[in-house]
Amino acid sequence: MPDLLDDLRDALGAAAVLTDPDLLRGHQRDEADLCVAGMPVAVTRPADTAGVVAVLQVAARHGVPVIPQGARTGLAGAANAVEGAVVLSTAALNRIVEIDPVNRMAVVQPGVVNAALAAAVAEHGLRFPPDPGSWESSTVGGNVATNAGGMCCVKYGVTSEYVIGMEVVLGTGEVLRTGRRTAKGVAGYDLTRLFVGSEGTLGVITEITLALRPQPEESLTMVAVFPDTATAGAAVAGISAAGLTPSLLELLDRTHLGAIEAYRPMGLRTDAGALLLAAADTGPRAADDLARLAEVCTAAGADEVFAATDAVEAADLLQARRLAHPAMERYAAEAFPGGNGGLVIDDVAVPRGSLAALLDGVEKIAAEYQVAIGVVGHAGDGNMHPNIVVDRADPASLARGRRAFDAIMRLGLDLGGTCTGEHGVGLLKREWLARELGPVGVRVHQAIKAALDPAGLLNPGKVL
Amino acid sequence: MPDLLDDLRDALGAAAVLTDPDLLRGHQRDEADLCVAGMPVAVTRPADTAGVVAVLQVAARHGVPVIPQGARTGLAGAANAVEGAVVLSTAALNRIVEIDPVNRMAVVQPGVVNAALAAAVAEHGLRFPPDPGSWESSTVGGNVATNAGGMCCVKYGVTSEYVIGMEVVLGTGEVLRTGRRTAKGVAGYDLTRLFVGSEGTLGVITEITLALRPQPEESLTMVAVFPDTATAGAAVAGISAAGLTPSLLELLDRTHLGAIEAYRPMGLRTDAGALLLAAADTGPRAADDLARLAEVCTAAGADEVFAATDAVEAADLLQARRLAHPAMERYAAEAFPGGNGGLVIDDVAVPRGSLAALLDGVEKIAAEYQVAIGVVGHAGDGNMHPNIVVDRADPASLARGRRAFDAIMRLGLDLGGTCTGEHGVGLLKREWLARELGPVGVRVHQAIKAALDPAGLLNPGKVL
Repeated sequence: MPDLLDDLRDALGAAAVLTDPDLLRGHQRDEADLCVAGMPVAVTRPADTAGVVAVLQVAARHGVPVIPQGARTGLAGAANAVEGAVVLSTAALNRIVEIDPVNRMAVVQPGVVNAALAAAVAEHGLRFPPDPGSWESSTVGGNVATNAGGMCCVKYGVTSEYVIGMEVVLGTGEVLRTGRRTAKGVAGYDLTRLFVGSEGTLGVITEITLALRPQPEESLTMVAVFPDTATAGAAVAGISAAGLTPSLLELLDRTHLGAIEAYRPMGLRTDAGALLLAAADTGPRAADDLARLAEVCTAAGADEVFAATDAVEAADLLQARRLAHPAMERYAAEAFPGGNGGLVIDDVAVPRGSLAALLDGVEKIAAEYQVAIGVVGHAGDGNMHPNIVVDRADPASLARGRRAFDAIMRLGLDLGGTCTGEHGVGLLKREWLARELGPVGVRVHQAIKAALDPAGLLNPGKVL
Repeated sequence: MPDLLDDLRDALGAAAVLTDPDLLRGHQRDEADLCVAGMPVAVTRPADTAGVVAVLQVAARHGVPVIPQGARTGLAGAANAVEGAVVLSTAALNRIVEIDPVNRMAVVQPGVVNAALAAAVAEHGLRFPPDPGSWESSTVGGNVATNAGGMCCVKYGVTSEYVIGMEVVLGTGEVLRTGRRTAKGVAGYDLTRLFVGSEGTLGVITEITLALRPQPEESLTMVAVFPDTATAGAAVAGISAAGLTPSLLELLDRTHLGAIEAYRPMGLRTDAGALLLAAADTGPRAADDLARLAEVCTAAGADEVFAATDAVEAADLLQARRLAHPAMERYAAEAFPGGNGGLVIDDVAVPRGSLAALLDGVEKIAAEYQVAIGVVGHAGDGNMHPNIVVDRADPASLARGRRAFDAIMRLGLDLGGTCTGEHGVGLLKREWLARELGPVGVRVHQAIKAALDPAGLLNPGKVL
């Protein structure tokens, strides 16, 4: 399709239209497992809204799909290319347009990396709370497209609560402005929230207006060690029922504790069934809040509860949690000969009161399908990441992993949960989304997709 | 149209289909001014989802519009009937289905009155924060349909932040479930948020899943008295810039102070240009926070700052704020002979940093159009309610009021604001919404409306 590439180069300049085969291969997929990916014909890097308009208009004229991509750190295949598509990378849309301390707002382009935004707003005593595990490399546009979460959500909520306006280029090339710059506003349908989490299927976000928060105060951190995951789950329900709102409430199971200690020895209790990491950032009352958290954990059956003695120890504990993913990757790789072990990362959320039942059920699923499953996640939100260990060289192991994955999804829905708490639908969870939505929900999704992207060229095959 | 009424009676039972002329007249409109209203042919009161399905199916068969109504306390005409329509009242859908303290959730039908929900969840130490002025009589369904705000928003946000799932009956009679029961979830498009604030134009909400919060601690309250509204506006910007988050930050201007003192004498400083009422509910640090708020107010030019000495005095101050509306109504009525004076209540929000400019501009507009305008509102959100005093018996006065209203809208948009911070669009702000959205935004709104309500029978003529 020489015309397409010529047209893209005419519109964007040759330097912003990349066709090097290695680079194309590198832009085929995000970090999700179990997902297909095609080969794009080009990776485009528009540097402004007009460039995005041009890419979408050229693609529409040629009837070619457009795949928006940020840093490709997603875990559901939402950024995976389809064969012959044009990738629209936000890498060159990386400007912080404005930081407004009086109105506690920032205006950014989608390709700004979360860490860069965090550093810039910290100079004004502000922060953008969402903190996905990938925050050092992932982009704000990716956060918004997937409605990313993280560890702060238990107190500070998810990305959508901080997005108050956008500029979006529709599939037709039209430029839509949504939302506002004000603290409140109810003018028309909430298109901003419709685009948050729509995974690039409704339009390409070119500018985002973010609400910021003051920096929290230093937090106090504690650890509770439990004999098993079920008692840890009960403690989480107890914390919620007691009206406590920690600023962090994370769970690591025995598999993760062992994996982290093997990856970087730091004296974790590897004999424990599960560990809860909690923090309070409530200033003068943080010590009281921590004591109440400890009480609830002890009452729920914790073997041991201890507070970090200083900020250094607290940072170490948080670092242990942040190492869960690389440590578990190493653990999985070494679990099978030739380093062929890998992880299938799941993401399920249940009502907090059902967390113990979820954890218990995942253990049974691991036994039934004869796979190792380590569980880690945002216990305070009931949002868990069961990590299924598979041998990539063994089709039988992969098949068992896939069945365990499906069993976890089924369990989550049966417990009143959702098939994805924060990673999104992408390609990975389309069938489970359809089950969760039901036929009327699917039809309404399709109607909205058709209304906003009638040609169906925006990130086709994702979500729906 | 005898068939329509027969069909409705067959479907719902005769007792739930009301055609008494006085009752029909009483259901023609909400509390908005300047808005047209037609005469409905019937008011229906379904008591369950099946009844709502039946009303929508019968209406669709007859091609007759359906107007959802809660308590009709709205201020934008969104609940006004059109000629020949069927009103669907949520009065009989008033059941609190479930309160779940562990997951801090409630499931309610839309006709539950806010005050009833507040009382029920308070028994579990919980609350549903949104507190519109009408909360003692308005319904949760009305809150959700308009994305209502109130005084708590400056710290606790608006209704949409507390709605996590819904059951909605579409115009076809299909029953849609949106959202989840979990703290987090990113499964598919955010249909829940799309329906919040859609003012009955996309579907009829039959069940709402609400996130609740723990009851806040007792708050400390203070008052700052300013020589004029501009200095009060500057104080609000200063409070935000200082990183303070009061739990309440309300403004009353001189006109309102005089009106309240005349309505119920309570020793307010009627010589002041404006008064800010602020509160802090941060427990052991509330006194410190209040002192910092006072400092900022003094630096911005407050003549006097004082803290409520006890809970009784604090409640009195809050009561003064709550009396602003009836007091101003009385003031307006008495401003013209024969009690013909009335209020046109506006609702505009600007970025907090532009509040002083808004207040200053409203004074100029009052002078230019020779109308009295009292300003009251949620200063901490930049959300003001300019109340324009008009003589209903004098077309010239009404015309001046209308021009002042338009000038305030224009000023709000020029300051980067929105034409409605919390009252909604309804009939009152349709033209201003179109200006705010621009042609692409209007087209996208129309496309979504057509996708979800292709027959166009749901609350026609509202919003768009």
